[in-house]
Amino acid sequence: MNSNLQIVILGGGFAGLQAARSLRRANVDLTIIDRRNFHLFQPLLYQVATGELSPANISAPLRALLRKQKNARVLLGEVQVVDLNNKVVCLTDREIAYDYLIVALGSVHHYFGHDDWEKIAPGLKTIENATEIRRQLLGAFEAAERSPNPDEIRDLLTFVIVGGGPTGCELAGAIAEIARHTLKNDFRTINPADARIVLIEPSEYPLDVYAQPLPGKAAQQLQRLGVEVISRTRVTGIHQTHVELLTEGKEQAWRINTRTVLWAAGVKASPIAASLLRQTELTSARGGRIPVQNDTSLQSHPNVFVLGDLASFNHDEKGDLPGLAPVATQMGAHAAKCIIADLNERPRTAFHYRDRGSMAVIGRYSAVGVIGGWKFYGFVAWFLWLAVHLMYITMFRNRMLVLVQWGWTFLTHDRSARLILDGPTPRIPQLAETTGWDNDPAMPHVESTER
Amino acid sequence: MNSNLQIVILGGGFAGLQAARSLRRANVDLTIIDRRNFHLFQPLLYQVATGELSPANISAPLRALLRKQKNARVLLGEVQVVDLNNKVVCLTDREIAYDYLIVALGSVHHYFGHDDWEKIAPGLKTIENATEIRRQLLGAFEAAERSPNPDEIRDLLTFVIVGGGPTGCELAGAIAEIARHTLKNDFRTINPADARIVLIEPSEYPLDVYAQPLPGKAAQQLQRLGVEVISRTRVTGIHQTHVELLTEGKEQAWRINTRTVLWAAGVKASPIAASLLRQTELTSARGGRIPVQNDTSLQSHPNVFVLGDLASFNHDEKGDLPGLAPVATQMGAHAAKCIIADLNERPRTAFHYRDRGSMAVIGRYSAVGVIGGWKFYGFVAWFLWLAVHLMYITMFRNRMLVLVQWGWTFLTHDRSARLILDGPTPRIPQLAETTGWDNDPAMPHVESTER
Repeated sequence: MNSNLQIVILGGGFAGLQAARSLRRANVDLTIIDRRNFHLFQPLLYQVATGELSPANISAPLRALLRKQKNARVLLGEVQVVDLNNKVVCLTDREIAYDYLIVALGSVHHYFGHDDWEKIAPGLKTIENATEIRRQLLGAFEAAERSPNPDEIRDLLTFVIVGGGPTGCELAGAIAEIARHTLKNDFRTINPADARIVLIEPSEYPLDVYAQPLPGKAAQQLQRLGVEVISRTRVTGIHQTHVELLTEGKEQAWRINTRTVLWAAGVKASPIAASLLRQTELTSARGGRIPVQNDTSLQSHPNVFVLGDLASFNHDEKGDLPGLAPVATQMGAHAAKCIIADLNERPRTAFHYRDRGSMAVIGRYSAVGVIGGWKFYGFVAWFLWLAVHLMYITMFRNRMLVLVQWGWTFLTHDRSARLILDGPTPRIPQLAETTGWDNDPAMPHVESTER
Repeated sequence: MNSNLQIVILGGGFAGLQAARSLRRANVDLTIIDRRNFHLFQPLLYQVATGELSPANISAPLRALLRKQKNARVLLGEVQVVDLNNKVVCLTDREIAYDYLIVALGSVHHYFGHDDWEKIAPGLKTIENATEIRRQLLGAFEAAERSPNPDEIRDLLTFVIVGGGPTGCELAGAIAEIARHTLKNDFRTINPADARIVLIEPSEYPLDVYAQPLPGKAAQQLQRLGVEVISRTRVTGIHQTHVELLTEGKEQAWRINTRTVLWAAGVKASPIAASLLRQTELTSARGGRIPVQNDTSLQSHPNVFVLGDLASFNHDEKGDLPGLAPVATQMGAHAAKCIIADLNERPRTAFHYRDRGSMAVIGRYSAVGVIGGWKFYGFVAWFLWLAVHLMYITMFRNRMLVLVQWGWTFLTHDRSARLILDGPTPRIPQLAETTGWDNDPAMPHVESTER
């Protein structure tokens, strides 16, 4: 029957995949379009970046996930344009018509207008980001081991993480563990434990989306792991050799010399959002998100659903829902429910996010979280985090492998996925002679193509 | 004591690593230099290329392997020049003096003077090669699923492997298994089992380094897996859209249309060999190898050892030793023994390769091999191959993970490491209109930057 309703899903993340699965028994034809051939379990991406897991451990081929769902097909492709009026999605090499469209393309890094920072300070969204961060982290220790210059060694062993949200805390904690434990006896010239790990947080405490005492506890736990938390401070410049910082209430900017800056400070809606906003004449919400109706569809186009990070859904008047996997999954299921309601000529229902809680891990034995209104921190939170994440990893096989690798890392502090791949052998950047910062307020921006 | 003998080892492969380990109790300072921070278990690299294992499963960080060996340090770096007379190794950013030098840099692909083929037909030597091959293989199925053109689909689903040695057979067998089993129900438009897998072999049978009946059995087993073996045929051209072939005794070249060509036809000595040959005024042996003395050192420079693939060691007048891990490992141990003999002012001994056997795997239940003079094939050979390779994987942790992944793949035919990474989304190359081959002997070489 080619007369089936054509449903096109853009993005095979948590929202898109759930929408597809929830429509498995519907009499429709589903097309899931993604740039990548796999679904990524993003909550564990930082473990790929820090060499604990391999990319394949947290990825599952979309085709394998949807193999048995005969009404679904997967297409690899990059979405160029969505034409809402003609109900067509344009890929690079073809057009696909739809009756219903589910847009779940997620978010990208946001450098607050400083797109040039991206080259120096990678964020953590894709597998490629993760392997690049891994390369920079491990490469810095390698370069330090080779360097004859104590100042250079100190700079190479300084790691700055911008942003104290969940990703920033995860990265900072894991880097501290690498430096203090994993690499402990690996080098002959440097002592990896000398590494300075700095977390830059604009507010008073990291993880300030949580209510007290959790942010305070998080700061304590980070410090215990050896992370230096610099509060009430913003980044005003990122350069090959240093970051510029401005602390609240101070007039004078200051700097930290470093060769490794990681970006965990912000995301914005996928570029597709701008075009959708233009076509619907809607006003962009915070971070470029698209305002949706209470059923997650677009006001002017009820056959188009916008889900996950891309949607601005006004939840209990509290502002947008957070960019979390459970939000995306529930929205995916809801969009599917609305389509089924339409098919059965029943009214759609409004979306309600059931907040079962959320957690952020910091390091071994360290996490904070809220589950069912209860606040947890320390060992208990860490243990719960472990259990929940293991439960949610999509495919059974990965779950077993992740368990084995976690068990090993836990027992030995070792991380086997410590491969420096893809890219030139890390080299010590050629530095321009810089005079001291205080003497040189103009501060030369050292350009270098190497990093 | 800085008066220790300085021993520099170039290359952290099987030969270099074994040499370092065998010198663990010697009163020397060891420096192991490698471009990469890990030792690679190359015999299983084809499983990374075919999505069964992750890169980290077959790699072990060199620093972790040598962590407890206090007389060894690891340096990441690319060797630019070895100056034999001044006993100095030059890296990009520094020079390192040595008393003894162990050169174990292995081999690179050899395209028989057609270096332009490398862009189209990747070989399998590095992790990057493996992930690139994985990307091309899986990308071809994806592109075929998207294509509206039956001819194009047929070309996309044609996989040509050049060279029927162990690597060629491993790749051909694994691709057949992917097409017939792993991807069985993954696509909606194409049937992956339609894929044509072609192995081009210049002699009568693949794996002809073995004595009969093994090559004949190998050909049978390949055919049973669905691989088309084309014997007595050489490749005379590799293009974006096809390969040109010339069969023994025929005058007319012919072609196979394909978008995926894998190179498993030859290796030659690492580029460092040429410079060493020039400095020693030795004549290059087959494949650019460096002729060594019976103790594996250079005639003119007894403090320099050349090991593994790089050495031409005349074994029982039978020609060079094969480029196998056991050869490299034994040579590494022998070079270490010679250095220890020198330290103790005892005479060096001659190197003797103890051939315990060798094996080549073809697919599930299929392998051939010789162990202790006994010939094996079929299930028994496959089972032995499995046991031996599991035993030899370097680190305990990887062994366990590999076992889990193999068990899973065996039970389910599934391969989890099926990520298409690093590179543009596979696209269908823009084809020039080509007329048929027979009508157009000039045959336009279709240039395309995409692949």
